[in-house]
Amino acid sequence: MRVKNYRDVEAEVEAPGATMRWVIDAKDGAPNFALRVIELEPGASSPFHHHTWEHEVFVLSGQGAVRSMKGLTPIGEGDTILILGDEVHQLINEGDDPLRFICLVPNERPIR
Amino acid sequence: MRVKNYRDVEAEVEAPGATMRWVIDAKDGAPNFALRVIELEPGASSPFHHHTWEHEVFVLSGQGAVRSMKGLTPIGEGDTILILGDEVHQLINEGDDPLRFICLVPNERPIR
Repeated sequence: MRVKNYRDVEAEVEAPGATMRWVIDAKDGAPNFALRVIELEPGASSPFHHHTWEHEVFVLSGQGAVRSMKGLTPIGEGDTILILGDEVHQLINEGDDPLRFICLVPNERPIR
Repeated sequence: MRVKNYRDVEAEVEAPGATMRWVIDAKDGAPNFALRVIELEPGASSPFHHHTWEHEVFVLSGQGAVRSMKGLTPIGEGDTILILGDEVHQLINEGDDPLRFICLVPNERPIR
């Protein structure tokens, strides 16, 4: 068993205004999936992109939207998002505070 | 893609003072792992138990402790816990407010 506050994990800069912390992953011995915490500064967004694996997202704080091929859906604290493999997606901070969310991925992430 | 606030999911009573919401799981098409939100009222705890699958936990709010064979470790907001398969564990609310946490499990949970 291992207890660790996510703030004690180094935040890697993914893009301007976007950081990611790999809080629990295979390096810790997690056998199946990884827990990351992502923060987007106001106005920042992830790329509009897709991949073969799924995301499970839990929004911790902030206000924003998730974009799919069908358009934008508002997101805020307590919202969860299931993004299946190959679904195009983008998370966007539309608020005045950081948009903070947990984003889970499977350890196996095959690139087709 | 599916967006859903965890509060809109029915809270199942697991034990006195303990509820669980299955927010994202195989019924939604999640292929690998399930996201549950658990709330323990003040004084409540999960059983001191073990199983073959792992947990990945993220504490949303409240104050408490996680018990292992080595004793108690304090937990609060932003703490994460990796509990590997077969590790004995118990989460305990030691505060005055609900202890709210995300608890992830793999979809495959074999009973040995």
